[in-house]
Amino acid sequence: MPDTPARPPSGMEGINGLTAASFVSAFGDLFEHSPWVAVAVARSRPFTTARMMHDAMIAHVRQAAPDDQLALVRAHPGLAGQEAADGVLTADSTVEQSRLGFTRLTRADAEDLAGLNLRYRERYGFPCIVALARHATRESVVEAMRRRLPADPSDERATAIQEIGHITAARLAGRLGRAGGALSIHALDISRGGPAPDLAFELHRNDGGGWRCLAARRTDASGRTGGPLLSGLDMEPAAYRIDYHVGDYHRAQGEGGSFLDIVPIAFRISEPGVHYHIPIQFTPWAYATYRGS
Amino acid sequence: MPDTPARPPSGMEGINGLTAASFVSAFGDLFEHSPWVAVAVARSRPFTTARMMHDAMIAHVRQAAPDDQLALVRAHPGLAGQEAADGVLTADSTVEQSRLGFTRLTRADAEDLAGLNLRYRERYGFPCIVALARHATRESVVEAMRRRLPADPSDERATAIQEIGHITAARLAGRLGRAGGALSIHALDISRGGPAPDLAFELHRNDGGGWRCLAARRTDASGRTGGPLLSGLDMEPAAYRIDYHVGDYHRAQGEGGSFLDIVPIAFRISEPGVHYHIPIQFTPWAYATYRGS
Amino acid sequence: MPDTPARPPSGMEGINGLTAASFVSAFGDLFEHSPWVAVAVARSRPFTTARMMHDAMIAHVRQAAPDDQLALVRAHPGLAGQEAADGVLTADSTVEQSRLGFTRLTRADAEDLAGLNLRYRERYGFPCIVALARHATRESVVEAMRRRLPADPSDERATAIQEIGHITAARLAGRLGRAGGALSIHALDISRGGPAPDLAFELHRNDGGGWRCLAARRTDASGRTGGPLLSGLDMEPAAYRIDYHVGDYHRAQGEGGSFLDIVPIAFRISEPGVHYHIPIQFTPWAYATYRGS
Amino acid sequence: MPDTPARPPSGMEGINGLTAASFVSAFGDLFEHSPWVAVAVARSRPFTTARMMHDAMIAHVRQAAPDDQLALVRAHPGLAGQEAADGVLTADSTVEQSRLGFTRLTRADAEDLAGLNLRYRERYGFPCIVALARHATRESVVEAMRRRLPADPSDERATAIQEIGHITAARLAGRLGRAGGALSIHALDISRGGPAPDLAFELHRNDGGGWRCLAARRTDASGRTGGPLLSGLDMEPAAYRIDYHVGDYHRAQGEGGSFLDIVPIAFRISEPGVHYHIPIQFTPWAYATYRGS
Repeated sequence: MPDTPARPPSGMEGINGLTAASFVSAFGDLFEHSPWVAVAVARSRPFTTARMMHDAMIAHVRQAAPDDQLALVRAHPGLAGQEAADGVLTADSTVEQSRLGFTRLTRADAEDLAGLNLRYRERYGFPCIVALARHATRESVVEAMRRRLPADPSDERATAIQEIGHITAARLAGRLGRAGGALSIHALDISRGGPAPDLAFELHRNDGGGWRCLAARRTDASGRTGGPLLSGLDMEPAAYRIDYHVGDYHRAQGEGGSFLDIVPIAFRISEPGVHYHIPIQFTPWAYATYRGS
Repeated sequence: MPDTPARPPSGMEGINGLTAASFVSAFGDLFEHSPWVAVAVARSRPFTTARMMHDAMIAHVRQAAPDDQLALVRAHPGLAGQEAADGVLTADSTVEQSRLGFTRLTRADAEDLAGLNLRYRERYGFPCIVALARHATRESVVEAMRRRLPADPSDERATAIQEIGHITAARLAGRLGRAGGALSIHALDISRGGPAPDLAFELHRNDGGGWRCLAARRTDASGRTGGPLLSGLDMEPAAYRIDYHVGDYHRAQGEGGSFLDIVPIAFRISEPGVHYHIPIQFTPWAYATYRGS
Repeated sequence: MPDTPARPPSGMEGINGLTAASFVSAFGDLFEHSPWVAVAVARSRPFTTARMMHDAMIAHVRQAAPDDQLALVRAHPGLAGQEAADGVLTADSTVEQSRLGFTRLTRADAEDLAGLNLRYRERYGFPCIVALARHATRESVVEAMRRRLPADPSDERATAIQEIGHITAARLAGRLGRAGGALSIHALDISRGGPAPDLAFELHRNDGGGWRCLAARRTDASGRTGGPLLSGLDMEPAAYRIDYHVGDYHRAQGEGGSFLDIVPIAFRISEPGVHYHIPIQFTPWAYATYRGS
Repeated sequence: MPDTPARPPSGMEGINGLTAASFVSAFGDLFEHSPWVAVAVARSRPFTTARMMHDAMIAHVRQAAPDDQLALVRAHPGLAGQEAADGVLTADSTVEQSRLGFTRLTRADAEDLAGLNLRYRERYGFPCIVALARHATRESVVEAMRRRLPADPSDERATAIQEIGHITAARLAGRLGRAGGALSIHALDISRGGPAPDLAFELHRNDGGGWRCLAARRTDASGRTGGPLLSGLDMEPAAYRIDYHVGDYHRAQGEGGSFLDIVPIAFRISEPGVHYHIPIQFTPWAYATYRGS
């Protein structure tokens, strides 16, 4: 199976230390049939995080010559297209198309999709690329394709590259053992016996050289955040710290002493493919945390 | 009672904002009958902490002309001496001498002490000054006096100024409402069900401009420290943070994952005259803290 | 709206204290057009719990004369049947049929269902009764109806009464403000940093006269239980206690001292329509709990 | 050293299972030179607790014939008396008299004490027996002896037996490895950030057959109790439970919901010679406990 790469190192230290050849061997297939992206980015190392490395790859694609961009976009298979019928999909594409059932369509659905693909390709000159992982159902994919049919051609090429960005980020997360990883929180006000809504906090990561703020957020009505704070490619193994503005929270409710103000919760993510759920329970005078599940 | 000063502001912001006259009015009597110390130091403001302000006072005394130093030392009353008999002790001195019973000695004890005082004054030319607050019993004071009788005269003047430093620090702590204040900790390893010995930690204070490390220590066999981390004059109202090296502690025992490494506990001291006892209970995966008593 | 009863008392003390007439007024419509069930059970009061009161109602139906049973069963409307078309559904039935869309079927679906209803009624002599709240989709309801078509007629009458039991239990839960209420747990082993699987525990309720064991269970691999421990009608306002066999859990892992054995967590449910989530975090030497969300 | 007994079993199960001869061998010397007490009580086994066993011993002495009582009392050495001078003190008496310095008196003190002993013995016909462990200083012992000189002779014999009770309870605690053991608590209201004063609680022990209330108490202003809840002989290895009336505590302050009412904290004492400090931190909605130190 020439498509299956050797497992790359999971941490950036290991990746930064690879020879250019090994780097290309490990990441050359992230971009469909286009190892030139990895070849170029190998020279830009070191990177602090995998996200930054991926950002560099996408930036390189965006700055590439129009013909190179077009070649990359055209290197992608159509959805449920000829490549699948001929059995020449890459391993990644096979997995991605299978999840939503594009590899086992009814005849009617297959014909509908073929028609859509044809109209798209006639208009723009390249196959319609959709980051399937961002869709929950096949219907949602087909609807997105229909919406993109009447776009401006030059806008649509940017859209195609954006979708390639989503696809390759997910592929890289998988290569680095981060698929399925997530960081979530839950804040409980145990003086009141319920969730702590509207609690401001910041998430920081220690990138070796110091603490860097990744996000400044507030909890929702359930004391949580809508989605995870981190997931997939962003689950960089590192030290993290969440600063909860517990003092402001209590002052907003007209209560609390001044004992606790900003409560820092510090922890290390070392298994980036795992769900870290880290709740906090607090009063104006006490708090507790633990690794939940 | 002309000796009783108006209550000064308790925070450094207030103290730094006083006019020179008000500053001297508030702190001129810290040094026995020697307002010149406060007069000089009023011009060196602002100070970040009361300890720094007191350090500046002592530095000023150490750099003063020899005659001024001698005048300051001589301004102190003898222990159970003529001033007490004549009722002309300052308010501070009265409280200090009363605590250990120097104001109600038996005739025999009074005669012993008078003899000691006389020999000391004959040898050095100034009264024997002892920071009574650092002694638990009258016997301990008397023993210290005996030990100091055979010293070198120039060394002994430095010793007298050092004792004046202790006396005035305690007086200033009292003026600022910090007498009786303390910060103590207790670390419990609730995976093992006992105290956490030999746990490294640092105490930091946020002096407005950032975090400053005040001490780097280890817990003793009982998971505590010998004495309080802060007390008296050092109980500066401010934000504090204790960084516990929980990861190192667990690694030293050959256990623990890598989830918790340095655990920061952040809190504010706003009542500097009160005892803050702040325990931590931890495992390799969880921790809790609260304001204890 | 003659179908809407006055809100009954929510606690059993209040219900036990109602006059027979008020009791029938409050609960006479639980059983479709059959207040005789409430009339009979009013005389059997007091009941300790609402579940026991409902059990008595069902027992009364099971012991009723065959003609009375038949009349009760026949009093129920068909699914998407003539009563809905004529607008004479009871308020309860309207809500129940609307949830899954039985009141707004396509013509094709309506015809299918009418056929099923007809064949069922021809075979058994009464309408097909399904406790809709126990089904997530209309398809699941229709499948259940098909499965019941070939049954033995005397078995099928028992099945109809069983379904009526489910329907009336849900109605009673609604009357008493318990719809949506639930009790769930989550056990975390904070020495190991993960869920505590296979932890034995018992749930007890204090029924005034003492503690009564309601269930003896074990946590699953996620430290939870498959569904809630209590929900709906069983959310009796009372004192509860969960006894966790933490000592056995640790012994099974070859660890832990003997400090904690059975850990009791006691709490009161006073809002039976609310979700009580009550996690426990423990080591062999410590534990904590809180009302979560 | 014929005075040193073989170490007895530490749990009541083991003690109840001893042959009569082994029981007397283990406990015959608790009562000074009077193995007849152990001989009698050996037949009254089984006992649930060591305290109950000791109570049976004292009851047997109280019901003994006057001559036997007198013989027991007379078997005790005087304080700093002839037995010490002759080197014939029992091992227990030597340790007890040494602690307060009775074995190394100045001549003046020895003469005073000899006078007191003589007057006491002339008046009552037996030596003055004092449970030294209940006194902190020699002065306190001497003062107690002086107070007892003018008593009524029949009262004084009862007093002597009472003192023998204290002495033998401490000896038995030592034999069973319970000297130094203690149970203490500390209740903290972490909604308010301070101790929880006036919190009612009961201490229960599970004596195999069920829970038995040992004490009903309230916390003091510091959230503690004046002395330990259990100590010495009463540190029976067993399961214990403390029921804290947290609901009443919050209601008395006009706050708190109804989620927590009586909070049970259950634990096992298995090392009766050790200090168990078991704090509780609570809000109206959460609580935590751990084995402290």
